[in-house]
Amino acid sequence: MSSFDGIVKLIADDLSAVEAKLTENTVSEYSFVDMAVQHVVEGGGKRLRPILVVLSAKACGYEGTDAHTLAAVVELIHVASLVHDDVLDEAAIRRGRETLHTKWGNKVAVLVGDYLHARVLSMLVSRRADDPAMKILADTTQAMCEGEVIHAYKSGDFDISEEEYLKIISFKTGKLIAASCTLGAHLGTNDEQQIDAITTYGQQIGTAFQIVDDLLDFVEDPEKLGKNAFGDLREGKLTFPIIHTRKVCNADEKQTLEKVLNPNTDETKAIAVVESLFQKYDVEPHCLKVAQGYTDRAKAALAKVPQSDARFALENLADYVVSRDS
Amino acid sequence: MSSFDGIVKLIADDLSAVEAKLTENTVSEYSFVDMAVQHVVEGGGKRLRPILVVLSAKACGYEGTDAHTLAAVVELIHVASLVHDDVLDEAAIRRGRETLHTKWGNKVAVLVGDYLHARVLSMLVSRRADDPAMKILADTTQAMCEGEVIHAYKSGDFDISEEEYLKIISFKTGKLIAASCTLGAHLGTNDEQQIDAITTYGQQIGTAFQIVDDLLDFVEDPEKLGKNAFGDLREGKLTFPIIHTRKVCNADEKQTLEKVLNPNTDETKAIAVVESLFQKYDVEPHCLKVAQGYTDRAKAALAKVPQSDARFALENLADYVVSRDS
Repeated sequence: MSSFDGIVKLIADDLSAVEAKLTENTVSEYSFVDMAVQHVVEGGGKRLRPILVVLSAKACGYEGTDAHTLAAVVELIHVASLVHDDVLDEAAIRRGRETLHTKWGNKVAVLVGDYLHARVLSMLVSRRADDPAMKILADTTQAMCEGEVIHAYKSGDFDISEEEYLKIISFKTGKLIAASCTLGAHLGTNDEQQIDAITTYGQQIGTAFQIVDDLLDFVEDPEKLGKNAFGDLREGKLTFPIIHTRKVCNADEKQTLEKVLNPNTDETKAIAVVESLFQKYDVEPHCLKVAQGYTDRAKAALAKVPQSDARFALENLADYVVSRDS
Repeated sequence: MSSFDGIVKLIADDLSAVEAKLTENTVSEYSFVDMAVQHVVEGGGKRLRPILVVLSAKACGYEGTDAHTLAAVVELIHVASLVHDDVLDEAAIRRGRETLHTKWGNKVAVLVGDYLHARVLSMLVSRRADDPAMKILADTTQAMCEGEVIHAYKSGDFDISEEEYLKIISFKTGKLIAASCTLGAHLGTNDEQQIDAITTYGQQIGTAFQIVDDLLDFVEDPEKLGKNAFGDLREGKLTFPIIHTRKVCNADEKQTLEKVLNPNTDETKAIAVVESLFQKYDVEPHCLKVAQGYTDRAKAALAKVPQSDARFALENLADYVVSRDS
């Protein structure tokens, strides 16, 4: 059993409760809406964010059911962002299933994302006024959009630095992962030091997660990945491995790299150029090392949280983020 | 001065305060995000929904500033839906300005809509737990999406009945217009009869508004309209005038109509066919009569609200919805 399977097993009952919340809160009386929405909500995925809400809550001593509601909320925000992301990037396959927009058109995909946001709002309606969840989620969804807009804006900009890119992904991916941890921690404690520690943990693994995600697009078996490899490259999308390669390679190679990143370039040629540069400059081990740096900081932050099975699971989860192959 | 200008003048100070709220609550520290967002928020429009919040509040005796916040909230929800609608329909021009997606691409347009929703969430964070606004807005945004998804799903379905279509637009357009009225009313009163009356008013003018909108696409001067005429026809979108025409015309004409609604049909020919059928079957006066029926019911509902300048303005606004030319 992998460390990830072990974590899932530890909180299996909680995760079942989260799945039930997801279904209960997305069902629509209109059969077509329901079909399209369930298609994306049930679309698999690791449920990383729900796992983080549940474990963070437990690590701070909370065992109640509100963690399941908040876990469902963050997962729906995540699924909505994937659905809208699929519209944008025209990714043909996500997680090995047809994406919503190839199945029913962009129109429905944009609307299903909006529908999920509407349902999230419904799930938050009944919360107490002094509940921090609303503000955390409002700030998070705003930061996610800002990160996405800046990334979209920078997409034609070959000169983006590693630092700029890491800032963007800390918004795009990191914020919601961090928020999952913060929301869970708030359920169990008012101790700001513990909440901050768990938030830092989330921010750090969020960035590590995205760096590894970027890398897997280049190096992983498409069958394991559940989507086409080299998808980012095909879309001319600059991600961490390419940004790093451009920084370390020589002037000639830089020119070649810029050429093959043009989506009009023959794909086989582009892949060959990128693979040879990755080999020459040890890009895969470098990316893993950078990601490992983030997860090390994540684990270090947890020192301020009392030892428990849940804290131990969070530590294992940090390692899994770097070692995973899908 | 038109009746609409008179209404705007009556609440000019309130509308300035709403504009200030709109800017204040959409500003982003990221200049590109800010530019894209301000482009759509300042994009003109009648501010019908803010006007309805302010007038409904006044009609129920409320004169405070919370009406400005809620007015800004409903307008942002409306603008977000327009931005996402522009992505879907590839409408080249909205209100005489370039749409966001022709200016910066679909990517940014989807994200800006999402960003506006995130800002709406931020504006709602500080509300009291017993405030009805959250639930009203959650239900409304959900219904809007359901209406849009069903409309998208039905877009290829030539057999849609007038009743089905009216139900769809009562969701797509009517719900937010009704919610604007309900939110305003709630600020001023707890009297359920008054709140229901104002909500009914909003539902009815919402449907009237959309029927007239559908009609203007066929009969109005594009310059006044601020967008290309026959846009709906060009996209093969079935709207009220066409659905009605199909119901009343003979079998041969029905066949011709179905043919010209195919977006591949020559546009000039399609327009000629539609214009001749509209003439033959008095489609324009029929649509206006149906719309007038809704606004008559809207005005009748207001009888349960005490007489005031604001109530009088709401009555005038109902007439304007049908008599407007843009």
